[in-house]
Amino acid sequence: MREAVRFCGRDLVDVYISEDAAARHPDLVKQAKKATHWVHPMTDEVARAISPDCQGVAAVVKDFRTDGLPKVDWDFVVIMTQTQDPGNAGNIIRAADAAGADAVIACSGTVDVSSPKVVRASAGSVFHLPSITNVGFEEVAEWAKARGMTLVAADGGGSVDLFDAEDGMESLDLAAPIAWAFGNEAHGFDQIDTSGFDHSVSIPLAGHAESLNVSAAAAVCLFATARSRRRMGAWDKAKTD
Amino acid sequence: MREAVRFCGRDLVDVYISEDAAARHPDLVKQAKKATHWVHPMTDEVARAISPDCQGVAAVVKDFRTDGLPKVDWDFVVIMTQTQDPGNAGNIIRAADAAGADAVIACSGTVDVSSPKVVRASAGSVFHLPSITNVGFEEVAEWAKARGMTLVAADGGGSVDLFDAEDGMESLDLAAPIAWAFGNEAHGFDQIDTSGFDHSVSIPLAGHAESLNVSAAAAVCLFATARSRRRMGAWDKAKTD
Repeated sequence: MREAVRFCGRDLVDVYISEDAAARHPDLVKQAKKATHWVHPMTDEVARAISPDCQGVAAVVKDFRTDGLPKVDWDFVVIMTQTQDPGNAGNIIRAADAAGADAVIACSGTVDVSSPKVVRASAGSVFHLPSITNVGFEEVAEWAKARGMTLVAADGGGSVDLFDAEDGMESLDLAAPIAWAFGNEAHGFDQIDTSGFDHSVSIPLAGHAESLNVSAAAAVCLFATARSRRRMGAWDKAKTD
Repeated sequence: MREAVRFCGRDLVDVYISEDAAARHPDLVKQAKKATHWVHPMTDEVARAISPDCQGVAAVVKDFRTDGLPKVDWDFVVIMTQTQDPGNAGNIIRAADAAGADAVIACSGTVDVSSPKVVRASAGSVFHLPSITNVGFEEVAEWAKARGMTLVAADGGGSVDLFDAEDGMESLDLAAPIAWAFGNEAHGFDQIDTSGFDHSVSIPLAGHAESLNVSAAAAVCLFATARSRRRMGAWDKAKTD
């Protein structure tokens, strides 16, 4: 909830805070009061009634999802084509945030990114970057290309070797404007039209594992881009400034 | 279960297989019969009674965990010091396997790696590489160093920048014999003696996320080592040969 209070700004409607939590986090109370008139004290009983693992702060925020694709200049977006598991979706959003992505796009067929399990697994990252919803993959593919992004599928059978791409030995430039797409946990991209992908990238696997979990694969791919971007000086300094 | 049948060999005790599954996977039946005399037909009702999401094959295997540290020449091991969430533990084991690690060490205080949730999250990787259990972290640290491995903590506050290490700009050589340690989900390495670490490595984060999920962080770190090892020619070819 701390992340909601810090990042939702005007989208914060109400904040409920227990006496204990208010004493422990005076900074949070100050931030909440700056953002909304509606900061309410609550008892521990109320906190527990709101959620069994409420840690003394609860907030009502306006829906953080954005319907449809905006006309903005983004150069690093993450597309979930059909992610079904809320833990995976939350972890992909968290990795996208940490790698410096501009936005996450949850195509129709992806789990609801505002569901409690996704929000929790994202560790607050759903409040840090835009979540675009209610769009089909083909529409997203057209949009990404019209904006000059290379559309890249992370796919175990992909012909581009991620390590080679990181070493500049493939035609894919990981530091250039990029839209990374991740598929369904079980059937990958089997149920979507993949003809729009510019590149299909596989992570080289040693050992005997046939694949990585989709959120682990996303972390590896997104940090390959993050590393390449930092090398080229295109690096979100929000964290380090 | 396919992975248990393929990789457990003599440790396979019984295999139960439904008529449907036997018809769909004749190769699996053949492999099972080679490994054990005890391949039993079962009905779909029995399969469902064994586990609600049993897909027609069930196996009894000897305990795959190894107690205590063996005297072997390994040069890439993964240490879970206190991983608590079974999904994270399974995903770390899966990433370790995929990155070509020789073994996973689950220190005392880590979730039981033979629990169903860990086995499932590992997608069979628990059967691919040794899981060392029943050892304390300090013992593991001594053992790793005595075997010439560099002991490295993955830690958000670490002073070694992972990207710089990958680019050869740090004193840490990711391709040299290495033991990667990952901490607890909530308190990292707060509850263990960290004086034994040779390096403490952080993944550079852009955006606003304060950290990555521990299994995502493990994937990023282990594949940094995998990439460096492949560059140096130290790469497990099990997969590609």
